[in-house]
Amino acid sequence: MRTRLCEELGIEHPVVAFTPSEHVAAAVSRQGGLGVLGCVRFNDADELDSVLDWMDRNTDGKPYGVDVVMPAKVPQEVEGLDLDELIPAEHRDFVSRTLDELGVPGLDGEGGAAGVLGWLHSVARSHVDVALRHPVRLIANALGSPPSDVIERAHDAGVQVAALAGKAEHARRHVANGVDIVVAQGHEAGGHTGEVATMVLVPEIAAEVGAEVPVLAAGGIGSGRQLAAALALGAEGAWTGSIWLTTSEYQKTTGESATQRALLSAGSSDTVRSRIYTGKPARLLKTRWTDAWAQPGAPEPLPMPLQNILVGEAHERIMRSADPSVVSMPVGQIVGTMNRVRSVAEVFDDLLGEAERTFQRLDGLR
Amino acid sequence: MRTRLCEELGIEHPVVAFTPSEHVAAAVSRQGGLGVLGCVRFNDADELDSVLDWMDRNTDGKPYGVDVVMPAKVPQEVEGLDLDELIPAEHRDFVSRTLDELGVPGLDGEGGAAGVLGWLHSVARSHVDVALRHPVRLIANALGSPPSDVIERAHDAGVQVAALAGKAEHARRHVANGVDIVVAQGHEAGGHTGEVATMVLVPEIAAEVGAEVPVLAAGGIGSGRQLAAALALGAEGAWTGSIWLTTSEYQKTTGESATQRALLSAGSSDTVRSRIYTGKPARLLKTRWTDAWAQPGAPEPLPMPLQNILVGEAHERIMRSADPSVVSMPVGQIVGTMNRVRSVAEVFDDLLGEAERTFQRLDGLR
Repeated sequence: MRTRLCEELGIEHPVVAFTPSEHVAAAVSRQGGLGVLGCVRFNDADELDSVLDWMDRNTDGKPYGVDVVMPAKVPQEVEGLDLDELIPAEHRDFVSRTLDELGVPGLDGEGGAAGVLGWLHSVARSHVDVALRHPVRLIANALGSPPSDVIERAHDAGVQVAALAGKAEHARRHVANGVDIVVAQGHEAGGHTGEVATMVLVPEIAAEVGAEVPVLAAGGIGSGRQLAAALALGAEGAWTGSIWLTTSEYQKTTGESATQRALLSAGSSDTVRSRIYTGKPARLLKTRWTDAWAQPGAPEPLPMPLQNILVGEAHERIMRSADPSVVSMPVGQIVGTMNRVRSVAEVFDDLLGEAERTFQRLDGLR
Repeated sequence: MRTRLCEELGIEHPVVAFTPSEHVAAAVSRQGGLGVLGCVRFNDADELDSVLDWMDRNTDGKPYGVDVVMPAKVPQEVEGLDLDELIPAEHRDFVSRTLDELGVPGLDGEGGAAGVLGWLHSVARSHVDVALRHPVRLIANALGSPPSDVIERAHDAGVQVAALAGKAEHARRHVANGVDIVVAQGHEAGGHTGEVATMVLVPEIAAEVGAEVPVLAAGGIGSGRQLAAALALGAEGAWTGSIWLTTSEYQKTTGESATQRALLSAGSSDTVRSRIYTGKPARLLKTRWTDAWAQPGAPEPLPMPLQNILVGEAHERIMRSADPSVVSMPVGQIVGTMNRVRSVAEVFDDLLGEAERTFQRLDGLR
């Protein structure tokens, strides 16, 4: 199965895997897909640098990419402005009270956690700086077109730029901005998503910009049938994410975790789209934590990046609590089919094998 | 393109068209698909009878079906209970005030409209009685399994029964109840919909019950790519609805209408899922009417069937107002591609032609 995407990225199969785990990303690249390492978890650019060194040693020279979180408009990060001070006390009280009610232990006097700084523009920029010192093939931006100077620097370095889009007009804007690959991310996807489902969004974006750039389908793709359907819709490949969260390689990054246990037992209806993770609508696993924010009387989530700062310590407490019923985790509706731990190689073989069997089944209908 | 569905229903192409227009339904059946006439608009069973007489004369002996709206549990319709009295004054005031604010004229002293009685169980039953006197091939139920005696009577008459499902467990229950065809209706569909998108729902339901009964994909299917994708996902055909609302045959039922003008100009983001149409979540065209119900301070919609009674007269006033900006109309996200009036034959040819070209394109990738 080869598409224009394979040529442009120098990969064997049109499957791109977004993942915060370098172990998953490297394994996907070794399998002939494109592993894309999510950078938002790296508060410290030097840590990202070491991990990319590791990627360079563990991808057998195959292409890989990185994913940053960067709005096109550079926000003003005012010198001396403490973002913490912009968070209302009502919100802090709600988070603190909710964690107590959910039985999530405190951090044992270790003090507040730093939160995930990757949502800050300056930190995302440091990720780009580091990535461009490595042989990355792709820089993807979860928030759409990156700023024009970032696109220019990537192109100067021979690196392609991908941007997520939830509407056809966003895709058009990305291409006008010089983006090389558009990821059409449907409503059913994990993480930031729009309203329009993959089935409708992919043909719409392919019609809008598919003549100019490859379009990847994202959202609802975790099996070979769904990969085949994505190609039928006009995508030149799949952008996958959730499916890798329950792989054995993912465990190498996080250890055996409550999050993985929660994902393995969840059904396709056990997700919710909410602004509580980052301030923008993102699909998350439905847990007692997301339920609490949906209760009458819960505060409205704050805008990005304040919401992420607000819940930074909460996320750390939740993670350490090891309670699957309260985890805070972006995941798509395909979580319903993620019912056992598989290796990346096994997931990859299942994807490609089932896609091939699907094509054969379709042949039989004609 | 032939599937088990074609054998079971005696049709040439695996495309089922749900429509309130007998002109569309008959034309689809004549094209080799299955036209399914929505019965909910018939308050008077005799009127349905005449329309089915017309269908019998205008389908060239090809199969057709009907769609009723019937919960599996027979609700108690208490003798002498006036449902009108269960509607809070606050809700009536809101509707009346909102229509005034939207500039929707009154009914010129013609008195209150009857509303759409098809949502009442007794009326839906009269639809089944009438349908079974005609050579219908399929009775579909928009609310899941019909009551067991209805399934039995249909089977005794050699009529198949289809039921819509928004979750795999619903599909399992339908098959246990004796339903012959399951329609997996994704989030992006018009009318009543669940949370799970077609891309995820169809493989899930096909895995659950596909070995026993044909599964149709519904939601997001209005082009040949989407039809091909539905088959890739494991469906044995498509259940379509929205796409027929802007056909020239539909105009024969409704006349050239503000609703059609509104649909033709809407984009894929211009829908909203709301309980305001029937009391259950249904996807509607986003207009000033749906916006009004989403405002802070608007009342919560009432449960079925009260909400429908509440808005019955409003719908009639809105329809007569001929203002596209206030229409109240169920439609799916594919409304974004419904940009010109085509004949049923043209839509059908486009669907099948693009599906075939899609299969050829997929062949080229292997």
